[in-house]
Amino acid sequence: METFFSFLERRVDDCSSLLCVGLDPHIPDLKEPTAASALDFCLTLVKQTAPYAAAFKPNAAFFEIFGAEGWTVLKQVIEAVSDESKRLGSLVPVILDAKRGDIASTADAYAQSAFENLGAHCITLNPYLGKDSIDPFIKDHEKGVFLLCKTSNPGSGDLQDLKIMKEERGKTDDLLSSSIFLYEHVAKLAQTWNTKNNIGLVVGATHIDALKRVRAAAPDLWFLSPGVGAQGGELEAAMKAGLRKDGKGMLIPISRGISRASNPAKAAAEFRDEIINIKMGMKK
Amino acid sequence: METFFSFLERRVDDCSSLLCVGLDPHIPDLKEPTAASALDFCLTLVKQTAPYAAAFKPNAAFFEIFGAEGWTVLKQVIEAVSDESKRLGSLVPVILDAKRGDIASTADAYAQSAFENLGAHCITLNPYLGKDSIDPFIKDHEKGVFLLCKTSNPGSGDLQDLKIMKEERGKTDDLLSSSIFLYEHVAKLAQTWNTKNNIGLVVGATHIDALKRVRAAAPDLWFLSPGVGAQGGELEAAMKAGLRKDGKGMLIPISRGISRASNPAKAAAEFRDEIINIKMGMKK
Repeated sequence: METFFSFLERRVDDCSSLLCVGLDPHIPDLKEPTAASALDFCLTLVKQTAPYAAAFKPNAAFFEIFGAEGWTVLKQVIEAVSDESKRLGSLVPVILDAKRGDIASTADAYAQSAFENLGAHCITLNPYLGKDSIDPFIKDHEKGVFLLCKTSNPGSGDLQDLKIMKEERGKTDDLLSSSIFLYEHVAKLAQTWNTKNNIGLVVGATHIDALKRVRAAAPDLWFLSPGVGAQGGELEAAMKAGLRKDGKGMLIPISRGISRASNPAKAAAEFRDEIINIKMGMKK
Repeated sequence: METFFSFLERRVDDCSSLLCVGLDPHIPDLKEPTAASALDFCLTLVKQTAPYAAAFKPNAAFFEIFGAEGWTVLKQVIEAVSDESKRLGSLVPVILDAKRGDIASTADAYAQSAFENLGAHCITLNPYLGKDSIDPFIKDHEKGVFLLCKTSNPGSGDLQDLKIMKEERGKTDDLLSSSIFLYEHVAKLAQTWNTKNNIGLVVGATHIDALKRVRAAAPDLWFLSPGVGAQGGELEAAMKAGLRKDGKGMLIPISRGISRASNPAKAAAEFRDEIINIKMGMKK
């Protein structure tokens, strides 16, 4: 049975890459502060980097800021990835980085917007509202989600690093020694919920210890691990902590590290090669 | 100093209402499944219910589903509330129900989209990413946020009802008896973060015990309490549990209970009156 992650793994094999190219048309990076310029920016990136990209990840915020025109551009960018996939003969999945989270008919509407109307294959979601807020996005196993687990920002600890208690434990004495972080609990839930092979986790590459803990809690899941490059994570340490035993299971999103390079194609190729070299070194 | 909640409280005084009218153009409720029909639906609701509305709350998902056209309609709907405010001589705040949550420049982009481009006065946010994900939305004290705290859906307990440990406690013996729910911790953080009087909390009217706990944890904050009407909460019990001592501090959002009524103006007036009657009864 085809699932979102079987598509992704085929693409990873086709291009020997774990690189996820971020499509973030920050206004300061554009020639002009217009939706048309955002479109140019993204189309150039897609064309130049597609051979090295295991996936593309447009962030909805940088399109939404242009209002209606930005929404049209977002759809055009996703279509351009689809065209490039046909040219390459290999489907490059699009992960819409939207961090949505709502309930019931509202979640249905967001899912329809992302998957049916925009044509994305996957979306990032916030888990705070619980399983029923995720369900509308995972009912089709060919569409996937990455749930926020441990994010890369400094404030991520405010909630995610809280220690939670397991109510089933009888002895209060054991509580402190055996407690787990909230983000570990989210990872365990996601591992349990992943019955259709279409749930992954966002785990920042900036938190090596968290990557290890989440990998232990969710041995099978794919991670989307931002923070390398512009955000300053160290790639090798992150990959050692987060990769699955099969050498997959981790997408490395890079945005400005590629888009601001004088030659984005070369920058993407170099990131792809660096990832391969680290993997090869780990096998020794 | 004017703040988002000083604006809201002035409107609450002007209209003697705690009713927040939801603007949710669900496709099954429209004459045709088009953005133009969504606009008609919302404009009619705004005109008919504005005199009884302490605030309006459009949910972004039901506009986003129409793509670029939906985004244009959302902006037009917010402008229509502004026009109606001028006609009434009383600013009716618009709370954009978008449940956003992202970091750094991405959060900046969402804030600019909501407040500057769309013209909303307030937005709902997800707190899972921590304080630095909230900051870009609260830097202007005239713009406000409602943070998701305890949501009204059945799955809200998956994360929000986890018991968390306070690390500062010395004795593990006390842990079980003195632990708090994750949503209470969010409430306490929000109370601490609210230095500009522009942070409120989403606390479902479907959870009476949670309303009491959150009111104890955050005695000063405004709540946005969905779940009455279509979602089945009981208004009086919710208001008794959630109102502040000054008889304010709680907005009651109603969407389908008004929009699906044969006479939305009458339905809104009746909800407004019911809220007043409950408040009067509580004073006795």
